[in-house]
Amino acid sequence: MRNLVMTVSYDGTQYFGFQSQPGGNTIQDRIEAAIEQLTGERIAITSSGRTDAGVHARAQIINFHTSSLIPLERWAMALNSRLPPDIRIMEARTADPQFHARRSAKRKTYRYTINTNRVPDVFQRHLQFHHPTRLDVEAMRHALRALIGEHDFTTFCSVKSTKPSHVRTIFDAEIVEERESAASSSSGLIHVFVTGNGFLQHMVRIIVGTLMQVGEGKRDPSEMAVILQARNRKLAGPTAMAHGLMLWEVVY
Amino acid sequence: MRNLVMTVSYDGTQYFGFQSQPGGNTIQDRIEAAIEQLTGERIAITSSGRTDAGVHARAQIINFHTSSLIPLERWAMALNSRLPPDIRIMEARTADPQFHARRSAKRKTYRYTINTNRVPDVFQRHLQFHHPTRLDVEAMRHALRALIGEHDFTTFCSVKSTKPSHVRTIFDAEIVEERESAASSSSGLIHVFVTGNGFLQHMVRIIVGTLMQVGEGKRDPSEMAVILQARNRKLAGPTAMAHGLMLWEVVY
Repeated sequence: MRNLVMTVSYDGTQYFGFQSQPGGNTIQDRIEAAIEQLTGERIAITSSGRTDAGVHARAQIINFHTSSLIPLERWAMALNSRLPPDIRIMEARTADPQFHARRSAKRKTYRYTINTNRVPDVFQRHLQFHHPTRLDVEAMRHALRALIGEHDFTTFCSVKSTKPSHVRTIFDAEIVEERESAASSSSGLIHVFVTGNGFLQHMVRIIVGTLMQVGEGKRDPSEMAVILQARNRKLAGPTAMAHGLMLWEVVY
Repeated sequence: MRNLVMTVSYDGTQYFGFQSQPGGNTIQDRIEAAIEQLTGERIAITSSGRTDAGVHARAQIINFHTSSLIPLERWAMALNSRLPPDIRIMEARTADPQFHARRSAKRKTYRYTINTNRVPDVFQRHLQFHHPTRLDVEAMRHALRALIGEHDFTTFCSVKSTKPSHVRTIFDAEIVEERESAASSSSGLIHVFVTGNGFLQHMVRIIVGTLMQVGEGKRDPSEMAVILQARNRKLAGPTAMAHGLMLWEVVY
């Protein structure tokens, strides 16, 4: 049995999220069906973590154990020819038998993209949340810094979470701006990158929904530390739309 | 009557091209329907030129004459709220009564994008032709230079063309490479930009289909001038897939 590890990129627009569901139409269902078509094996794959319906992945990591003898270098192309065009295996490698895509992960990075131009970009509309009014990025940066470190993130977690602990560590969080020109100070793209040891349900989207209220001037950046302390989901902003979110990188 | 000029961006994936058709589902049909909903006027809009089914536009230009009194600054948002999300009015302005989006155009630029990475980019798959084998870009540049100037482009024109003259001028043609890293000399994106005073049916796509054969080493770059002289469509390469093509800019 080999333990195969693959980097997977997907456009989540058409899917009910990563994790397998009775109704099907998930990324996991499609990949497992492609593996079964290719090898005849019914295998449950493991991912670095689920992504919600509509959320994308630049580099999701999966692993699974197989007794198939297909050479390593043939796996990506063989699976891609059996997958829909919005899911692609970017790379395949082998790992120690102990490697586990979720448990072995050391840090994960998500990116959330906000387009602040007056009119959305038709070509990237499935990847960008359109917010055509000015956001105070410096205030958002200030607010974001309050989240760095080990905290109980209950305030920024769906109330449906069943996790026994909401303590997670954010190693790094930053905002990168992409302006079309130096003059266009109130337009362009805002990318929010958050890197942590793990994320709770809707955590990045609730953080971004709250940051947008800070950017709009509806909240003071100093509130961020206060509501984090309170461990109360009601004190945070709304859950930002799924389509702006992308699983960016997983480090092992 | 005001003569309104608008810059329109569209993702052509779902449409049967720009120009109105009895079957509907064209960019023109959607824009005219939105204008009628907004103003009650049934107006035929003029564009800088049709684009084929599946071809995109970053900045198509349209104009139309209207007696509507809606203030200029409200048009873009008012039409966008009545258009599907893959068609956006980027900007509206007024022009002299004589301005005509096609006849007044001085130069148009098209971009064709080829992705030479091993695996396609799921997020840009609707905008990039995937060609996962190495292309000799220097040979393609050499071949492309033969097209600059005023020529009869019958070789690079659909045999279905009904145009009385196939003489057009290409002012500029260049290839811009986007590499992910200096080391990845056989992967990345290749953008072919072609600027001319007008384009024949399938002209850019046939040019690119021929350039790809040059890039693959199936043709010598010096053939380009020879087949251009011959005015024979059969001597050129295949018509490249529509989805890699985008109307980039129109200059007046």
